[in-house]
Amino acid sequence: MRKGILMNTEIIAVGSELLLGQIVNTNAQFISCSLSDLGINVYYHTVVGDNRNRFMEALKIASKRADLIITTGGLGPTMDDLTKETIVDFLGLKLTLHEPSAQAIREYFKKRGRTLTENNLKQAMFPEEAIVLPNKHGTAPGAIIEKDDKIYIMLPGPPYELQPMFINYVMPYLAERENQRIFSAVLRIYGIGESAVEEAIKDLLLNQTVTTIAPLASYGEVTLRLTVKCRRDQDPLEFIKPVEDEIRRRLGTAVYGIDDQSLEMVVAKLLEEKGMTLAIAESCTGGLIGNMLTDVPGISKNFLEGAVTYSNEAKIKRLGVRPETLERYGAVSRETAREMAMGIVDTTGADIGLAVTGIAGPGGGTAQKPVGLVYIAIAMNGNAEVEEFRFIGGRKRIKNSTAKQALDMLRRKLLMTFYA
Amino acid sequence: MRKGILMNTEIIAVGSELLLGQIVNTNAQFISCSLSDLGINVYYHTVVGDNRNRFMEALKIASKRADLIITTGGLGPTMDDLTKETIVDFLGLKLTLHEPSAQAIREYFKKRGRTLTENNLKQAMFPEEAIVLPNKHGTAPGAIIEKDDKIYIMLPGPPYELQPMFINYVMPYLAERENQRIFSAVLRIYGIGESAVEEAIKDLLLNQTVTTIAPLASYGEVTLRLTVKCRRDQDPLEFIKPVEDEIRRRLGTAVYGIDDQSLEMVVAKLLEEKGMTLAIAESCTGGLIGNMLTDVPGISKNFLEGAVTYSNEAKIKRLGVRPETLERYGAVSRETAREMAMGIVDTTGADIGLAVTGIAGPGGGTAQKPVGLVYIAIAMNGNAEVEEFRFIGGRKRIKNSTAKQALDMLRRKLLMTFYA
Repeated sequence: MRKGILMNTEIIAVGSELLLGQIVNTNAQFISCSLSDLGINVYYHTVVGDNRNRFMEALKIASKRADLIITTGGLGPTMDDLTKETIVDFLGLKLTLHEPSAQAIREYFKKRGRTLTENNLKQAMFPEEAIVLPNKHGTAPGAIIEKDDKIYIMLPGPPYELQPMFINYVMPYLAERENQRIFSAVLRIYGIGESAVEEAIKDLLLNQTVTTIAPLASYGEVTLRLTVKCRRDQDPLEFIKPVEDEIRRRLGTAVYGIDDQSLEMVVAKLLEEKGMTLAIAESCTGGLIGNMLTDVPGISKNFLEGAVTYSNEAKIKRLGVRPETLERYGAVSRETAREMAMGIVDTTGADIGLAVTGIAGPGGGTAQKPVGLVYIAIAMNGNAEVEEFRFIGGRKRIKNSTAKQALDMLRRKLLMTFYA
Repeated sequence: MRKGILMNTEIIAVGSELLLGQIVNTNAQFISCSLSDLGINVYYHTVVGDNRNRFMEALKIASKRADLIITTGGLGPTMDDLTKETIVDFLGLKLTLHEPSAQAIREYFKKRGRTLTENNLKQAMFPEEAIVLPNKHGTAPGAIIEKDDKIYIMLPGPPYELQPMFINYVMPYLAERENQRIFSAVLRIYGIGESAVEEAIKDLLLNQTVTTIAPLASYGEVTLRLTVKCRRDQDPLEFIKPVEDEIRRRLGTAVYGIDDQSLEMVVAKLLEEKGMTLAIAESCTGGLIGNMLTDVPGISKNFLEGAVTYSNEAKIKRLGVRPETLERYGAVSRETAREMAMGIVDTTGADIGLAVTGIAGPGGGTAQKPVGLVYIAIAMNGNAEVEEFRFIGGRKRIKNSTAKQALDMLRRKLLMTFYA
């Protein structure tokens, strides 16, 4: 096919284990990511079992709606590995022994002291028209076949075989034909819902420019994906930056991060920038907040200590919560949250104390204090702010919402804090 | 369509983020797993972007080659959510407001004190022919539509919305039409590797009966999936039980649980059975162990308290670790782990103290104490046992391996404990 023409891609994964749900199709994700970096569109993913007829049907459909057809899996030595044979029949080609591949396979077995069985050489059979792609991590080579203005690329199923083959051989092959690129940036938003976000930037969504905007919501977070497609000699940021700036101007501090930044990463960064230390008192989250924060390397400089005070005794003994407070207002209350936050600061000497107490359920809820009721307190400079929340969902989801909300409160607090 | 006929299924995921490789299609895996438990075939997975024409094309193809078409995603309130609208057009139906759904959506927003925007009610529009599936975890209801001998099922994209909806409404709906069933039981194994497991049950793997055995390894755990396909009037356990018993006889306590039981669930159950209380001192895991345990409902009766003693000061002040010990052996040492475990018991009065200290990396490793070195201690009846481990992988993986290993040590200890 002609160079510099934008290709439309279909990725076909062959393997019954995918249709049985035994494994996830991570190959499709890896290939899609890589292709989007090259500015190559992916229009369809298809998964089909180890069944010759259904795979043949899928090939017919793909060859009608795509220019580039990439298959993964089914290149093994066993009888139900039929990807190569089926594609070759579909294209009306013939298989012959590819001597370099046969040699490589013999080597591979010799190295491991395993004896070569006949069917292993099945993996060395290719049509003469094919560009054969060596497999340094397994016995199944891949192949590229160009026919009738279409490109067919066959890759092995195991990710540790597919990924190096794709990076070392397929990417260079494709890059050379493409003169375009796609660039994406993801804005991460917390604290306002998807529809509210969309209201705020409705006009931008309606009049999309070369930079497209796609909202996505999950677990109380909203992300906006900004994507621009341009020539390789252009700088995509030139198109994305103005749109990003306008969105940030409208949504303000609700935009907490970009691309793969998590709330905990942003909080850790702020703590480091402001040179402040943190201690956490967790009840209903049971250690989740500490766990999230300590996923960030180097946090030990700023995170002094966490107390998972599940029982009342622990709240009293560890944090100095007053028994009268627990008695009068209960463990899940504004007052207890405040004393927990003040207490963790007193006992650790941290600059900031974060405390959460709530009812994660499924049991323990009442009419006045339903499952999902959560209080989050932040103590600093001798006083504490407490906020009440009502989260929904199962136990894990409530713990998760609580942890994220607590990290976001901390983030907003730190943004407004100038440490002397 | 007629009942008792084995259905062929196609799962269509709608979402450009999948084609850009930003997320993996785990919904297809979840649905495929569940359907195989019902004995329903899945022949194709398809992924298509938020594009009306291409989705319409995918629908045409699917309706030709499948009896049951399940879509995921594209039910949100935003403009690029077009799954429902497209299917309804494809089937030549009309959308009208579904009052119960509208009501649920209003409630949902009230609960959160968020203001309902116009586009949210878009999610309450359904054809009269549809069976509407309530969404307890989000605002987008799902739907089942039967037309021309085909079944169309629309589900929301977020897994925490899709999964309960599928389990609570779709599974019962489908089970009722199927006369075949596949039943699976998963044996969960910790502490021995995949090849050792396969060695121990080699003969069973070679001579599989009506009950098939499929080993799967991931992150230090091994699972054996026992599957039997039988008529609905047969009891699958009759076939599975003997095989399960034989495997348990051979692997002993290495089999820690079955199906979805996690290590933390098993530990929680043992604590309750033995009526023992637990306190945890975590360093490198930063609260992960407490978080895992507190995912189990009702754990508060047996889990008294956790201390995330990240800094040396905390280890000294909270747990009474002796400064000399830290100086002489270091924070990551057999001795420190022991004193942490003894200390958390002393300060909490718990029956058992669990303590972990290690180097999660990426920094902080030395030749003598490399990243991944971990000490786990269990204190009981006045003395503590300590074990040393060397885990590999990145920071999160090391934290995870440590937490699982600690829970498994605790499990084995509890199995041998008879509390007076």
